Amino acid sequence: VVVDAMGGDHAPKAPVAAAVAALARWEGVELVLVGDEERLRHELGPTRPGGGRLRVVAARGTIGPDESPIEALRDKPEASLPVAFSLLAAGEADALVSAGSTGVLMAAAALRIGLLPGVSRPALGAPLPTPEGREVLLMDAGAHMDARPEVLLQYAVMGSLYLERVRGVARPRVGLLNVGTEAGKGNRLVRAAYKLIAAAGLNFVGNVEARDIYRDAADVLVCDGFAGNLVLKGLEGFGLLVRDSLRREMMRDLRGRLGGLLVLPALRRLSRTFDYNETGGAPLFGPAKVIVKCHGASRTTAIANGIAVAVEAVRAQMMERMAEALAGAHARLGEA
Amino acid sequence: VVVDAMGGDHAPKAPVAAAVAALARWEGVELVLVGDEERLRHELGPTRPGGGRLRVVAARGTIGPDESPIEALRDKPEASLPVAFSLLAAGEADALVSAGSTGVLMAAAALRIGLLPGVSRPALGAPLPTPEGREVLLMDAGAHMDARPEVLLQYAVMGSLYLERVRGVARPRVGLLNVGTEAGKGNRLVRAAYKLIAAAGLNFVGNVEARDIYRDAADVLVCDGFAGNLVLKGLEGFGLLVRDSLRREMMRDLRGRLGGLLVLPALRRLSRTFDYNETGGAPLFGPAKVIVKCHGASRTTAIANGIAVAVEAVRAQMMERMAEALAGAHARLGEA
Repeated sequence: VVVDAMGGDHAPKAPVAAAVAALARWEGVELVLVGDEERLRHELGPTRPGGGRLRVVAARGTIGPDESPIEALRDKPEASLPVAFSLLAAGEADALVSAGSTGVLMAAAALRIGLLPGVSRPALGAPLPTPEGREVLLMDAGAHMDARPEVLLQYAVMGSLYLERVRGVARPRVGLLNVGTEAGKGNRLVRAAYKLIAAAGLNFVGNVEARDIYRDAADVLVCDGFAGNLVLKGLEGFGLLVRDSLRREMMRDLRGRLGGLLVLPALRRLSRTFDYNETGGAPLFGPAKVIVKCHGASRTTAIANGIAVAVEAVRAQMMERMAEALAGAHARLGEA
Repeated sequence: VVVDAMGGDHAPKAPVAAAVAALARWEGVELVLVGDEERLRHELGPTRPGGGRLRVVAARGTIGPDESPIEALRDKPEASLPVAFSLLAAGEADALVSAGSTGVLMAAAALRIGLLPGVSRPALGAPLPTPEGREVLLMDAGAHMDARPEVLLQYAVMGSLYLERVRGVARPRVGLLNVGTEAGKGNRLVRAAYKLIAAAGLNFVGNVEARDIYRDAADVLVCDGFAGNLVLKGLEGFGLLVRDSLRREMMRDLRGRLGGLLVLPALRRLSRTFDYNETGGAPLFGPAKVIVKCHGASRTTAIANGIAVAVEAVRAQMMERMAEALAGAHARLGEA
């Protein structure tokens, strides 16, 4: 597994610490850290963790989240992410983990790796943490804006397979994000996608309303990238609003201030529950190799979880299985 | 103004009380209450509020929120909502206020009233309450699932005009709900709508991300009904989740329980802020007459606010102004 040691807000500290933890956790796993050699050596210290199972590959510079992906990849071939992709493309690694920007990851995957057979468009999966400790995989969370019904079917197949094979969810429930629960609801896209997904042999639970995302209605929620991004960012904004408003309301009088001090641990637990940074990454769905994207604000635990996803995906032969499942779904479509 | 006295969870009590309050507030306004005559007379009591300015029109039965709109309107012509629409259609009232189900209201408007010239599809406006006491009008909140770019332009024109003329917002800021702020972001629909709205002579502030809905980014947020409904219901579900999780977290230990008691007033104030029931209704956008939809859970204040919206809309000649504005926007399109 090659780890982009310079991606994310807490690089290279968090990726290095996560890599060291991963070496201790899995005996058979070999890791490559790509980044500024001097800084990585400094973070690693005098010890050589994992014996010969850790390699450091030098890169110069990073690609920032505000750079244009295509231009940055062209102009900075020696930055950590392009170097990491070169190792993946050359077969020197089976998987890649990065907390760098999504746009750059998607572009690099498209340019250097290509798509799995049967995939029209790659998707982003957003693992939404729930109060019960489960995750709901919302996909596409914003990679592709104008999905066709067949593309939503591909998301359903890939998401379901990932949850089953890599995350250990038995018979993952596939839901279609929609404005009502009855079949026939929604816009042209989801009405057509409903029929395709219902006929695909998945554990399809039908339409799921946005208000039920957190109510254990499904394990993977399929939607187009436009809708997924709106819902995700809406929740994010509303969460911040509630937090700020609650603080302000509590500060209004002495009673509230005292109460606020007392409920602080409860508030912290709650905000951790909904904190992306505590959850691991999710793979990009579509590229032909395992590429795990961690949240930019990821700390050590989250990047370690991302490495775990990569390791499990490689061990479960996720790519081979996905290609088979997609071929099967397309064959069913052809018969229907 | 004709008021459907049987619509909503708190009918007929809330509509009757709201009507009595409205008569006291405006000297020149005449109201018609439509519903079960005996129950309405009972609610009104022995007094005759408003002198001759209040009329009661008898209706039999109501249409429930789970009935099929078209069938219910056909099979129950004597229910309160169809009777109220007959008065509106016959010109015996200038506006209609109801807390009945949206689907039935939309269907009755389409069958009995028709659309304003220049409107392809009616829309629902959801007035989202914000912590600062403003409202953000999200439209379409779910009336029409497959909007074309011209339809989003119509929403922008109608929403802007309503806020300016009826709600007293100076130069309302029109935003386009999108996945990024830069022009060129989004799916085909919003990219095309962006160009149309930008050229319509409105106070267009460009794209607004879902995370900024509550951050005073715009006064009216234009989107298609599928996206609007997802965002709205996502916020609703997340709000309930945060409330329940907070309660549970606080109940976990004595400290949290004590603190919870102390912050209770702050929590109540906060949940009131986001409570639909406290805000008034919004008109349906598109029908040729003023039809104000109040939330089904509306209590007296909310229905009174809905009546106020209806009165102000009639006084501001909203329909005539909207028709002019739509004609103007279409003329610009033709020139462009």
